[in-house]
Amino acid sequence: MKVSIIGATGYTGEELLRILAVHPAVEIAHITSENQTGESINNVYPHLNHHYSKPLSSMRQLEQIAAESDVVFLALPHGHAMAAGKTLLAAGTKVIDLGADYRFNDTEVYQKWYKVEHTHTDAPSVYGLPELYRKRIKGASLIGNPGCYTTASILALAPLVKRGLIDFKSIVIDAKSGVSGAGRGLSLTNHFSETFENVRPYNIGGHRHTPEIEEKLSEQAGAEVVVTFSPHLIPMTRGILSTCYGTLTAGTTAEVVTQAYEESYGDEYFIRLLGQGGYPATKNTRGSNFCDIGWHIDSRAGRVVAVAAIDNLVKGAAGQAVQNLNILFGLDEKTGLMQAPLYP
Amino acid sequence: MKVSIIGATGYTGEELLRILAVHPAVEIAHITSENQTGESINNVYPHLNHHYSKPLSSMRQLEQIAAESDVVFLALPHGHAMAAGKTLLAAGTKVIDLGADYRFNDTEVYQKWYKVEHTHTDAPSVYGLPELYRKRIKGASLIGNPGCYTTASILALAPLVKRGLIDFKSIVIDAKSGVSGAGRGLSLTNHFSETFENVRPYNIGGHRHTPEIEEKLSEQAGAEVVVTFSPHLIPMTRGILSTCYGTLTAGTTAEVVTQAYEESYGDEYFIRLLGQGGYPATKNTRGSNFCDIGWHIDSRAGRVVAVAAIDNLVKGAAGQAVQNLNILFGLDEKTGLMQAPLYP
Amino acid sequence: MKVSIIGATGYTGEELLRILAVHPAVEIAHITSENQTGESINNVYPHLNHHYSKPLSSMRQLEQIAAESDVVFLALPHGHAMAAGKTLLAAGTKVIDLGADYRFNDTEVYQKWYKVEHTHTDAPSVYGLPELYRKRIKGASLIGNPGCYTTASILALAPLVKRGLIDFKSIVIDAKSGVSGAGRGLSLTNHFSETFENVRPYNIGGHRHTPEIEEKLSEQAGAEVVVTFSPHLIPMTRGILSTCYGTLTAGTTAEVVTQAYEESYGDEYFIRLLGQGGYPATKNTRGSNFCDIGWHIDSRAGRVVAVAAIDNLVKGAAGQAVQNLNILFGLDEKTGLMQAPLYP
Amino acid sequence: MKVSIIGATGYTGEELLRILAVHPAVEIAHITSENQTGESINNVYPHLNHHYSKPLSSMRQLEQIAAESDVVFLALPHGHAMAAGKTLLAAGTKVIDLGADYRFNDTEVYQKWYKVEHTHTDAPSVYGLPELYRKRIKGASLIGNPGCYTTASILALAPLVKRGLIDFKSIVIDAKSGVSGAGRGLSLTNHFSETFENVRPYNIGGHRHTPEIEEKLSEQAGAEVVVTFSPHLIPMTRGILSTCYGTLTAGTTAEVVTQAYEESYGDEYFIRLLGQGGYPATKNTRGSNFCDIGWHIDSRAGRVVAVAAIDNLVKGAAGQAVQNLNILFGLDEKTGLMQAPLYP
Repeated sequence: MKVSIIGATGYTGEELLRILAVHPAVEIAHITSENQTGESINNVYPHLNHHYSKPLSSMRQLEQIAAESDVVFLALPHGHAMAAGKTLLAAGTKVIDLGADYRFNDTEVYQKWYKVEHTHTDAPSVYGLPELYRKRIKGASLIGNPGCYTTASILALAPLVKRGLIDFKSIVIDAKSGVSGAGRGLSLTNHFSETFENVRPYNIGGHRHTPEIEEKLSEQAGAEVVVTFSPHLIPMTRGILSTCYGTLTAGTTAEVVTQAYEESYGDEYFIRLLGQGGYPATKNTRGSNFCDIGWHIDSRAGRVVAVAAIDNLVKGAAGQAVQNLNILFGLDEKTGLMQAPLYP
Repeated sequence: MKVSIIGATGYTGEELLRILAVHPAVEIAHITSENQTGESINNVYPHLNHHYSKPLSSMRQLEQIAAESDVVFLALPHGHAMAAGKTLLAAGTKVIDLGADYRFNDTEVYQKWYKVEHTHTDAPSVYGLPELYRKRIKGASLIGNPGCYTTASILALAPLVKRGLIDFKSIVIDAKSGVSGAGRGLSLTNHFSETFENVRPYNIGGHRHTPEIEEKLSEQAGAEVVVTFSPHLIPMTRGILSTCYGTLTAGTTAEVVTQAYEESYGDEYFIRLLGQGGYPATKNTRGSNFCDIGWHIDSRAGRVVAVAAIDNLVKGAAGQAVQNLNILFGLDEKTGLMQAPLYP
Repeated sequence: MKVSIIGATGYTGEELLRILAVHPAVEIAHITSENQTGESINNVYPHLNHHYSKPLSSMRQLEQIAAESDVVFLALPHGHAMAAGKTLLAAGTKVIDLGADYRFNDTEVYQKWYKVEHTHTDAPSVYGLPELYRKRIKGASLIGNPGCYTTASILALAPLVKRGLIDFKSIVIDAKSGVSGAGRGLSLTNHFSETFENVRPYNIGGHRHTPEIEEKLSEQAGAEVVVTFSPHLIPMTRGILSTCYGTLTAGTTAEVVTQAYEESYGDEYFIRLLGQGGYPATKNTRGSNFCDIGWHIDSRAGRVVAVAAIDNLVKGAAGQAVQNLNILFGLDEKTGLMQAPLYP
Repeated sequence: MKVSIIGATGYTGEELLRILAVHPAVEIAHITSENQTGESINNVYPHLNHHYSKPLSSMRQLEQIAAESDVVFLALPHGHAMAAGKTLLAAGTKVIDLGADYRFNDTEVYQKWYKVEHTHTDAPSVYGLPELYRKRIKGASLIGNPGCYTTASILALAPLVKRGLIDFKSIVIDAKSGVSGAGRGLSLTNHFSETFENVRPYNIGGHRHTPEIEEKLSEQAGAEVVVTFSPHLIPMTRGILSTCYGTLTAGTTAEVVTQAYEESYGDEYFIRLLGQGGYPATKNTRGSNFCDIGWHIDSRAGRVVAVAAIDNLVKGAAGQAVQNLNILFGLDEKTGLMQAPLYP
């Protein structure tokens, strides 16, 4: 299978390269960077030396890339994937977009939150969260790969909202992310000395993953779900922990909650259920495509607290994209994703 | 003023020594450790060299310590302060307890959550949160110094519950703490390789700071407040961030919320209001007695998100204890606490 | 190939499990722990869930383990491998010891530095540093797998001492290690709050890897090499950086030094030569079996500075052990070791 | 005493503000920033709120600043202090420069290493390392405040070279620095995700602190001293550890080495001698003006290893500058510098 990556020098693109280095069915065709065209990828990322020595090309030769690729990963800032997506689809190449452009059913919601005009509103995109949308993904040609916060939050809450076990207006999501989620672009926020030995929230109530979570949870619930979403920056590189709170609906017992998780995810390889009282830790998932989920009943307050942990660059981005790739091409979903987490 | 510290070799006791080293009105009388009696404190903590070279004595000579001290700080595990407290008070020595034994109005709640019999139920203790209880503290002889999570959480929520601006049953507190809160005792949880590059929750719904928060907030509210409290361990040494969620009661506007904070804390030196939309960061408070508070109105969800940041060992323990000391002895509250935060 | 691990619950044993999870030719027979016999490994290490659910057995059934294993990894504290090694060899099972017991040609040196009697002085052990001793390893039945500091230091210096390019009495090795090198055992040194935001040396001139480095470099040099070795603890989990200093012998030019490295390692997959002026970084090797080497000529001082970076748990322990396994059994040396480094 | 800071928004300028906030004899007159003129300092550094709310002015009004200040700290990039220094001195204002412009006796060495023309070669500058040059500092009007690496390295080695206890050509300095030493300017090197869980060397043999160390050590030795200096970046914010190696001259015993340190520094408050076998740790000095020194005799190799630890922003920059201020104005040297280290 010939695979290209448009935007290979961000952390998401680079993580795709890391994972695909041991994928038995993949051959890398093109990798692009507009800023570093012509340079070898192992100059940009010396850790890839002895794995890749490929030169970076430009996405301006998109037709050629399309012609020489079975599938193309787009790892571009939001707003930049739509034009490429159109061209690639027209050429018959499958597309997995790791940005936000193809994640929304309702492109007006996208336009409102991302402040960008959506120019590909009739795209045949499928939301690439395999544990919820596997069947749709199978026959798709265009995948909108979920965001990192959204993957953890939706996986934690979907079994509860689907069955109406929590009040749809009661949901609070308090999420904690490692710094790699902010990418390789320089900013004071990601400056080592400012971020080390520090924890802080940002974009409370206004983060762009909020409408994505709400759209998918509403779809699961069959009713409108509104959440308060608060992301926090944690002094570590990788990992997202999503702590999700909901008020239990009348009659919802601990057993019912546990049953909901087991029915939903009992057969999922990449979801590890820690059970009621279980405490996920981001480190247990580092470098792997696992999502660990535990839940807690706070009976004094009538609430359930569901917690999910992932590696934001793997299950929250590149790993999930490869999982989608495997589904798209009829491979075992775990192909190339069997590395155990790097611990400690 | 002659000051002694019972239990000087834990992080709380040691932090008291750090702060008191530049307190102009304090002379250290006795410092004790039952495990390291006879050793010099600067063997146990080499960073204190050239500040202290005092030998550690034993708390078994409590009468002598009482006789030679105007005030004694107790920095002992819960359950161990009550016997010492009785003896010291009987000798006419003032007492500031940094543990949990004297924090509760209702000692039965203490007994239920701490699983220890309370043997000093008639203690004339005052809860040592100066911004809420300054007047009571002034005339007290025994202070129950608040917990670290509780200080941040109560300060963030008190203005809201006092005025009925949020639903008392809607409160969720998602707190993040540096590892020093767990003390110097060895455990796998605090083992470097297990905790670095890791974030995880613990004791969800069951942490002992829960009833302390509830009792004080209920007192402020004049009605029962129940909270869901979820603590998380963050890979840093110092700092607590408490993110607090509440559903706004009918008619509560952003202006009313802002006014509540300004009326409550506008004149408080150690509380820095970052205003609506402000984002506290633990690093901005490190090494200082400040509590930074910001708040956010999530109007889509009808919620307020109040966030407080402190240094868990200062405003969350030793610094607040010194603030109480200053009040007890009629000094300016800021005496010895004017060091600016250590940043970056 | 049936493989057992004696001492599977330390970080080295656990890292073997991580690597072997994707080794195509390996089946795990037994994993042992004397403290946690009977428990499942994924209780001890939850990150291994969905990879292993094997119960831990005891090494007291060593004969059975020998009978059911083609090769056994010993991951025991020094002094404890010798007895097991004898038994296993007698049963015809191959042995790879990750501790110090079988690393020395001169067991008296071992006895002097480790203060333990060597009870297996006639062991047919081969030092398991493939880049220097590959041929001997091929035919061996017992491998003494090198230490972490020693791997980095010897690989950095061997090309220089072998050719007499530096004065054998001039060598200084200043090494920096992540905390995982100290294992999972609890100690104040590895307590998070003591080690975070801290760097410090330890065991200067007295660390037990010193004689191991000296013995192997002397062998390479054909003359006695004495080094000053200073290890330092760095606030990170994984990684060793070894900065090695030597005075250039008369006539040694930069070109000669570069040629020495290229001749020695030009064909080695797991050694990545960064060239003269190259700066290794531990993060570029994390999770991989690579050793990155760069060198610098300080012509003002007449010195060469050679720097090597490895992941202490991979090329410094478990990865190198698997590399030895592959050589022992005639497999491609890279089998199971092709994961790219985890970056960032 | 009226004090101004030119370049107040870098970490060094900000650290001066932190320290001077509790200096009893100092009043801040002007603080400048060319990029953020007009902004309040507590917008740039929120942690300074409630300590300062001063607006930043521009250094273009240098005459006015001179007229209204008794002393001016220059915290500018190298090459930019000379013009300001001339003007300030001409106006009779004392100057403490925290950059490199006034550190060298031999301005040609400066020009060679810094690639900048020196335009103030007749400046009456004194090197501001009080423990070695206290007398000269007393009467000075212009101080060249030492670099961070140089402070630690010179203090570790001066007692040895002054007495000829080590071979002047044998010195290797392997230094480890926290990231704050690189300042607040954005670069990939200081990007959190690139630097966390990473250790690496840089500028081996070419770092600009090399000639500064050599000039001062040569002055102490009365003979030319050449060193190999290798700096390393450590994943922490503050702290420098300098590990210094030298070959003992004939007849130099451990006792002689110890005596050298005790005679040199026995009466120095800010130097804490840990003795032979003592291990400095950067964390023990954090936030304080201490320099901790320990030394080790590696008798097998005939070497001494001297290790010094400081906080790079305090004893390595702003704290030492305040120490110089105190000396210049006849105050107790410890004034404003009595805060104990922040531990843990």
